[in-house]
Amino acid sequence: MKSIKIGVCGVGNVGGAVLESLVNSPDILERNGGVKIDVISVGARKGKSAVPFDLNVSKNLMDVAHNDEIDVFVELIGGCQLAKELVETAMMNGKNIVTANKALIATHGDDLFNMAKQYGVQIGFEASVAGGTPVIKALREGLVANKVLWFAGILNGTTNFILSKMSEDKSSFEAALLEAQNLGLAESDPTMDIDGTDAAQKASILSALAFNTPYDFKAVSYGGIESITSDDIEYAEQLGYKIKHIAYGSIDENEANVSAYPTFVPNDQLLSQVGKQMNALEINCEGLGSTVYYGPGAGPKPTASAVIADLVDIANGGWHENGSLGEKNTLSSKSYQKFSRYFNINVKNEAGAIAKVSSLFAEEKISIEALIQNESKANNKLFVPVVIISGPLSDREVTQMTNKLESSEETSSTVKQYRIHNAL
Amino acid sequence: MKSIKIGVCGVGNVGGAVLESLVNSPDILERNGGVKIDVISVGARKGKSAVPFDLNVSKNLMDVAHNDEIDVFVELIGGCQLAKELVETAMMNGKNIVTANKALIATHGDDLFNMAKQYGVQIGFEASVAGGTPVIKALREGLVANKVLWFAGILNGTTNFILSKMSEDKSSFEAALLEAQNLGLAESDPTMDIDGTDAAQKASILSALAFNTPYDFKAVSYGGIESITSDDIEYAEQLGYKIKHIAYGSIDENEANVSAYPTFVPNDQLLSQVGKQMNALEINCEGLGSTVYYGPGAGPKPTASAVIADLVDIANGGWHENGSLGEKNTLSSKSYQKFSRYFNINVKNEAGAIAKVSSLFAEEKISIEALIQNESKANNKLFVPVVIISGPLSDREVTQMTNKLESSEETSSTVKQYRIHNAL
Repeated sequence: MKSIKIGVCGVGNVGGAVLESLVNSPDILERNGGVKIDVISVGARKGKSAVPFDLNVSKNLMDVAHNDEIDVFVELIGGCQLAKELVETAMMNGKNIVTANKALIATHGDDLFNMAKQYGVQIGFEASVAGGTPVIKALREGLVANKVLWFAGILNGTTNFILSKMSEDKSSFEAALLEAQNLGLAESDPTMDIDGTDAAQKASILSALAFNTPYDFKAVSYGGIESITSDDIEYAEQLGYKIKHIAYGSIDENEANVSAYPTFVPNDQLLSQVGKQMNALEINCEGLGSTVYYGPGAGPKPTASAVIADLVDIANGGWHENGSLGEKNTLSSKSYQKFSRYFNINVKNEAGAIAKVSSLFAEEKISIEALIQNESKANNKLFVPVVIISGPLSDREVTQMTNKLESSEETSSTVKQYRIHNAL
Repeated sequence: MKSIKIGVCGVGNVGGAVLESLVNSPDILERNGGVKIDVISVGARKGKSAVPFDLNVSKNLMDVAHNDEIDVFVELIGGCQLAKELVETAMMNGKNIVTANKALIATHGDDLFNMAKQYGVQIGFEASVAGGTPVIKALREGLVANKVLWFAGILNGTTNFILSKMSEDKSSFEAALLEAQNLGLAESDPTMDIDGTDAAQKASILSALAFNTPYDFKAVSYGGIESITSDDIEYAEQLGYKIKHIAYGSIDENEANVSAYPTFVPNDQLLSQVGKQMNALEINCEGLGSTVYYGPGAGPKPTASAVIADLVDIANGGWHENGSLGEKNTLSSKSYQKFSRYFNINVKNEAGAIAKVSSLFAEEKISIEALIQNESKANNKLFVPVVIISGPLSDREVTQMTNKLESSEETSSTVKQYRIHNAL
């Protein structure tokens, strides 16, 4: 039987689950994967007391990266700076890498993969996107024969839990976030999840694989779900949509564009049915059409499942190098992609106001596909909310239209706008 | 760049799509997979006129299996006997195999994989289940670290098209089948699709990978969708279900059980939302929970996508041998799995009949979770349909109960029964 020796840095929830699986259930792996994985060295800054297994523990994480005995260095400490130093050191020492660190790959991927090539080693990062759902493998192996046209993904579990909760229980954003925190599904500082950063990082990794672009998280435009209210959720329901946070990427000629925003997804599409903290990724290829991958996107056991799958792949010879030939495509932050849009506009509560707002759309030659003005409960209100579903608009066009609406005398100065997922 | 030389037997729809992709778009594969694939020899019984590419064509398929130049023999002729001879011959000549032939693998898998081991070659069969959706890869690589508890799959596109059509358009079974045939989604003789054979073959392949059982299609129990009527579809809707043809496999200790039957799937489960001719597979693992894979399950381009992915994998060193260690588990046709059930019973149209039918369930200590008796439109009818959703029953228990109902004086002699998918 094949066997590899590994060093693991980081013994938090994920590291713990990886060690538990390797130490307590080696039989599953030996039977399923034909591989024996020996944990030679564990790096834990808190020392041996933090590791509930009989393993060699170093307080100095660099010791693991320098360990001559190991074949693979497993980076599970998170963060960018130290993680990068450790991974680089390990590669210089001829070690293959497995990491769950999306921030590291999304920010320094190009440098790291170039260095891996230079030192003749490989980097596994299945765990960095969609946790236990093998989407990286699907993209670079299962769909290898196809040209990817676009992808659309629910890539952040915390966000999806909150949006699902708001939809099912009519919870407020704040109440749903609190519940996510109580269940351990959101960090005490959930900013990176809520504001879209996490999803954007993951989307930039998918773009590199799907469209052969650089690993460049900075070129992804994104927004969060903080501004979504129960009213938006209710309007979505009325119109036949679910609100999801969707990372969308597409390519036109040699220019790819990736973004991650709250998005109205039609109820008849599979992505709209992805509830709880689950992740899902739809990959649309020329000729083939869409395949969808659904599963747990985070958590110790799912992440460990992906880390170990990478280890088995490395033991079996690793992956082909894709995107290594010819020029890379560009990842541009300038979006040409057109989406239908949901506008939520506070319109003056007086006769003729809606006609005037509608005419603002007509002036820009933007079609109105649907309009909702629910009966106003309070007659004395200055403004009433009006919801408009427009025809397809680019990000530039929608910014223009929003500015126009906000500066109109018929409306209040804040107009909300979300994308509608077309999935052509 | 790595390169491999292949021979392809069979130039029907799938073979044509494979050749088209390899001949006309080698750039996609070279960029995505870092592999150059040369088609050295094509086997076509009708000869060169059947192959619209400038390639070497043999009318004698055995010539391809004997060709010394090729690394991989691609079997796309279908059927069992000649396909098996060709594949065996090619392996004896040291060729790796890629096949889309589910019947071949489901029936002769054990012999073929033993022979492959003996001759030091590999067999790729991603295309045999779920077409363009890489489920084999997910099972044996992506989920390698996990113990699979159960799987549930919509594995036959024709059947799913018919059931989806019956549900959406209120078509009859016959009208939906005719439409499938007109669209080229069903064979002129659709027996193998409709009666569940095709899904059962695919399920037996999944079982071998998920549960380390022999490849033994004969041990799978299955039934078709012929008996489903518009009334059943309507009752399902009323009760919050969609009717799907579900292949279900589970394992208890060392005994796996696999079956494929029409099944009521609750509307809140992803599998219920799989429409048209699409396939989907839910794989539930210990600790990890469910991951779901959705996509086109048949057709030239999706099947070609899977065949070519296998070729790239072989060029990159192939797969680890799983299930090669220790004893195989048993695949038993005796089901211990309990499902809630849908009963459709014709009950005598007279006072007290329903009470008597209900008491038949009570006598067997079977709980009734729901009961529907719609208002009878014709008072002079001898029987009226009564639908009962029962608590969980094994196949043996349900047969007993069905016999009891059919022999009762209160009912007509035909009682319909379908499973309800629990997904616990």
